[in-house]
Amino acid sequence: MSFPSVLIIGSGGVGTIASYSLCFNKKATVTSVLRSSYDIVTEKGFEIDSVDYGKVTGFRPHNIAKSLDDAAQYGPFDYVLVSTKNVADMSPLVAEVIAPVVTKTAGANTTVVLLQNGIEIEDPIIKAFPGHVVLSGISMISSILSGGNHVEHSYIELATIGYVDNKITPATDQEAIAKKFIEIYSTRNANGTPINQITYNDNVRLGRWRKLVYNASFNSVCAMTRLDTTRVALSGNREQWVIPIMKEIVLLAEADGNKLPETIIDNMVEGDKEEEYYKPSMLVDVLADRPMEVEVILGNTIRIGENLGYGDRIPYLKLVYRVLKGTQYGILERMGGAFKLPESRGLTEGKSYEDFRLTK
Amino acid sequence: MSFPSVLIIGSGGVGTIASYSLCFNKKATVTSVLRSSYDIVTEKGFEIDSVDYGKVTGFRPHNIAKSLDDAAQYGPFDYVLVSTKNVADMSPLVAEVIAPVVTKTAGANTTVVLLQNGIEIEDPIIKAFPGHVVLSGISMISSILSGGNHVEHSYIELATIGYVDNKITPATDQEAIAKKFIEIYSTRNANGTPINQITYNDNVRLGRWRKLVYNASFNSVCAMTRLDTTRVALSGNREQWVIPIMKEIVLLAEADGNKLPETIIDNMVEGDKEEEYYKPSMLVDVLADRPMEVEVILGNTIRIGENLGYGDRIPYLKLVYRVLKGTQYGILERMGGAFKLPESRGLTEGKSYEDFRLTK
Repeated sequence: MSFPSVLIIGSGGVGTIASYSLCFNKKATVTSVLRSSYDIVTEKGFEIDSVDYGKVTGFRPHNIAKSLDDAAQYGPFDYVLVSTKNVADMSPLVAEVIAPVVTKTAGANTTVVLLQNGIEIEDPIIKAFPGHVVLSGISMISSILSGGNHVEHSYIELATIGYVDNKITPATDQEAIAKKFIEIYSTRNANGTPINQITYNDNVRLGRWRKLVYNASFNSVCAMTRLDTTRVALSGNREQWVIPIMKEIVLLAEADGNKLPETIIDNMVEGDKEEEYYKPSMLVDVLADRPMEVEVILGNTIRIGENLGYGDRIPYLKLVYRVLKGTQYGILERMGGAFKLPESRGLTEGKSYEDFRLTK
Repeated sequence: MSFPSVLIIGSGGVGTIASYSLCFNKKATVTSVLRSSYDIVTEKGFEIDSVDYGKVTGFRPHNIAKSLDDAAQYGPFDYVLVSTKNVADMSPLVAEVIAPVVTKTAGANTTVVLLQNGIEIEDPIIKAFPGHVVLSGISMISSILSGGNHVEHSYIELATIGYVDNKITPATDQEAIAKKFIEIYSTRNANGTPINQITYNDNVRLGRWRKLVYNASFNSVCAMTRLDTTRVALSGNREQWVIPIMKEIVLLAEADGNKLPETIIDNMVEGDKEEEYYKPSMLVDVLADRPMEVEVILGNTIRIGENLGYGDRIPYLKLVYRVLKGTQYGILERMGGAFKLPESRGLTEGKSYEDFRLTK
């Protein structure tokens, strides 16, 4: 019997541990796309310090590719797992990136697995690849890649994965594919004890709302002030910004048919002692002058709110979104070639930079 | 007859042109406090490219001092002109800085002249020096100091100056002192043509509200997004942030008994072609990781609003204030020794960093 083949796009902290887990029990053939780290990983493999797997040296997935085009030789793939950062206001979009490796053959289509932040990130994929199954994973892990091949994995790999209905494939088939993927992704010791915790989620949208309570609030306010979570609290921004945003997410989630528990805000604000002085991803990005996931975390959320008729009830989300879109404007511009700014003032009323798109 | 003596504290772009103007017509004796630029100015003088005075080389005021203590030997001073940045959440405060040179002698007290941003910046001075006259100047000038002794002065020196009633000195005397100062500050060519424009202002508070329409809005939003004014507009932040803040300032000014013209917002937003791609001072500060004038521009304004019972009608001011206080928190902390952060989480409810004060 041949193993299912998995292509992993995005080998940062999250993608590399996913790669290792998929290889661990020898139930899949794994190909990883590595850009800048291709040479060092080819030569030395990954070095992983893992809370789940201990000290691992010289880890290489079955195939290593320099690019998507290069990876295609190892296809077709049963699964394409995407764990890249998702910057939806910058080209190319995820659907464009993965197009060359999402294939359709008689009786078997590539399943796309999104292990990324945000909400409604599955829609563009479902639209771009009709009839393909799209799985959506919400990952809780603390895993950081540094130096090209070193991974510090300090919090258990914990993910819930489910399908987002593509309206073409029978629901039972989509569910079966999700569960099959969870089976090959879940790892066990030689004595059968589970290691990582990958569970089936029959409502990934609820999971995404839950994660947004944190990501839309702390992530945004930390990026806006350039402070970590503890300093955000000390500076008064937790009361004035973070909690109001959290309340708006809880409100939207409920309006969307996904009621979150009453206690979620208190839990997220007070509960996680290990997150003191924590730098959320958008803060890390803005400090490095890299694009933030502002569209998938805030933009999509606000659009859902508008569609629900809740546009007037989410002022904090809209305000922080606009600030961060401004900051993002500067970041994308500094990446080069993004915008042609007018030589004279030329400020057209109501025009904002969403009308520009990066062309490279 | 002896000339009035003026001490200038703060020899950046604004203070240096003020210094030059006060020397120009030989109606005052000027002492400047120069810290980092003492050596170069002693050796070479200032080099000034001025829209008002043309190319000036080797300019030195009558006396140059390394520090306030050093300056005291040239006193007592009739006027102490302060043109430093005013960071009211950092020690030492302006009143503390100038204390050694504000002297009181039989029949003559030092007059303090504040040529600084913000609103209600005079109150701490009036309180600290009872019976001294406090003049308040609103300056419109574009003048930048670089390299320690080079000044690029590209927009006419234009200031309105008046007194803020100290409730001790007779009003007629305060007015006379203001007009006397304007007389020595105003410059004329050999043929009598006015050069700079220094005018008497019988309501400096109205002038400060007018300037706040710009400073509280564009300054703040540029600092928050790290974009210049043109890019703030292009990114949509002018509509969502700048104009709402301007409206709140106009509202507060009127509630404060200082009605601004209806057209002021349109004029400030659309009128000033020369300000395209302009970087307001708080943006310049935040990009250089230096403290911003957030308290005198936003904090004092909000406190006035609260006292007027308008606390609920200025949400935008409060929100941007909190973001920038957060950013300022990080800036002050990086300056060193500002805060003792808790080792464990220790987030006391409602406690914000105003409770900490820089001790150096």
